[in-house]
Amino acid sequence: MRIEKLVVLGVGLIGASCALALRAAGAVGQVVGVGRSRGNLERALARGAIDRGLTLDEDWTREIGDADFVLIAIPVAQYRGVLAALAPALGRGSVVTDAGSTKQDVVLAARELLGERLPRFVPGHPIAGNERSGAEAGDAALYVGRQVILTPLPETATDALARVAQFWTTCGARVAQLDAARHDRILAAVSHLPHLLAFALVSELASRQDSAEYLSHAGSGFRDFTRIAGSSPEMWRDIALANRDALLVEIAAYRSALDALALSIEHGDRAALDAMLARAADTRRHWGETAAGVGSGADGGA
Amino acid sequence: MRIEKLVVLGVGLIGASCALALRAAGAVGQVVGVGRSRGNLERALARGAIDRGLTLDEDWTREIGDADFVLIAIPVAQYRGVLAALAPALGRGSVVTDAGSTKQDVVLAARELLGERLPRFVPGHPIAGNERSGAEAGDAALYVGRQVILTPLPETATDALARVAQFWTTCGARVAQLDAARHDRILAAVSHLPHLLAFALVSELASRQDSAEYLSHAGSGFRDFTRIAGSSPEMWRDIALANRDALLVEIAAYRSALDALALSIEHGDRAALDAMLARAADTRRHWGETAAGVGSGADGGA
Repeated sequence: MRIEKLVVLGVGLIGASCALALRAAGAVGQVVGVGRSRGNLERALARGAIDRGLTLDEDWTREIGDADFVLIAIPVAQYRGVLAALAPALGRGSVVTDAGSTKQDVVLAARELLGERLPRFVPGHPIAGNERSGAEAGDAALYVGRQVILTPLPETATDALARVAQFWTTCGARVAQLDAARHDRILAAVSHLPHLLAFALVSELASRQDSAEYLSHAGSGFRDFTRIAGSSPEMWRDIALANRDALLVEIAAYRSALDALALSIEHGDRAALDAMLARAADTRRHWGETAAGVGSGADGGA
Repeated sequence: MRIEKLVVLGVGLIGASCALALRAAGAVGQVVGVGRSRGNLERALARGAIDRGLTLDEDWTREIGDADFVLIAIPVAQYRGVLAALAPALGRGSVVTDAGSTKQDVVLAARELLGERLPRFVPGHPIAGNERSGAEAGDAALYVGRQVILTPLPETATDALARVAQFWTTCGARVAQLDAARHDRILAAVSHLPHLLAFALVSELASRQDSAEYLSHAGSGFRDFTRIAGSSPEMWRDIALANRDALLVEIAAYRSALDALALSIEHGDRAALDAMLARAADTRRHWGETAAGVGSGADGGA
């Protein structure tokens, strides 16, 4: 794996960590960072993540033509402008991938905006991250043992797919492959729903007049359950809206489970409670013992 | 603080940790352990948590008369039998406390069964624990910096209350005081509800035909959110039923919050989503930075 020139659009935790991991592996020549703020680019330069940086206000597309690899690691809500500018500048053999948490909306935008370069685009989602953000949080080891899901299109060129898979394995990740719709459905259930449930619990408590007293008696069960409620509100608002349909299905399923639970408690139905609680505990303990459970990273932004 | 003879009823994680902490502080003479299984008592002896052990089938009440301190650390569902046997054996000046996760049901049983010894009973709830169990999990440092909530009755003797508070501070804990009903209401919101929400999420996922595929893509957001779903099903069934009324109120409030969230997503209401998510993130981040957040222990059994 060798990238001569990598352009990273969005040099935050995700983008900077990729650049640092590739550098550590000796797999990259020059790295150009493009981002919203000059301050963050300076920090990325200081960390050695990039060789030079341009803001989105500058003429960054002139760096695209001779880049053999482009990573899009900006918030999904900002993709359309970037893809539109990227398409005409992209070289014939270059490969483009991204790191967005939802994939159907990304595929839709790419179809609309990438034109004849569409086969060079491989949508991806690294299931990794932590509560930190910005280039200073960049970590060459962020992806080690974590999972990256690629959601290629029918049109995607096999060499582009292979190259993006290699990009992530060079960063230390395991690569999985899913259809974009299936990705969004599964991530709605195992990531987006838990995040929103945690946000909803804390928000509901915070809305009480005596919330301070409640929170003063919360322990580490609450601490771990709600850790992801400290994630970026902007990012999770965008994810909730981008993955609306799948998420509404998941919320409805969860609501039914909650109603059944309330009924079991109300009626003192020990058998029903035992069955539900034991099924959950067995599943969770087994998951925690598997490689997927132990080696898994944080959800993006969490 | 000096206890000449301590009887620990139930030498699991909670009971064994108390005994080890008091020993480490040089605050206890002899410790007698009483429990269901001979095997666990042997492990408690081997750990040095107790000096001798009796099973509940043996004549354990003969150890009560000259004990100046009794700690009840068995599942709440088993209190009635133990309290009934304890009451006639208890010395006049002895103090009794417990470590149950719900308090109104404990107070009710104590009122019914302790008779004239009722003023010597101080109900308590250490907000500490971890996913391990049994005497071998005992840890002298389990309570350091953790919160213990005492819920004295109007009849409780002030010297008994002071002595139980001292017992816990000697173990390293911070002591708070609440009315039993208030305790149950608050813990329903900050502990019992999150536990049941986590159980419900995992159980719902586990019930799907393709649950293995879903779980194979779960990351560390899921990992932390669902950690408490690996807790003891028996213990949480008992807590759910013991604190039924408060819990049903909390589930209803949470359901309303969830319905509002679903509506915001359905209608693409960015302002409502932003407000909810920001309120949660602000509250969670602030909580995480406070002593309560950082120093807090795990909920019992979690």
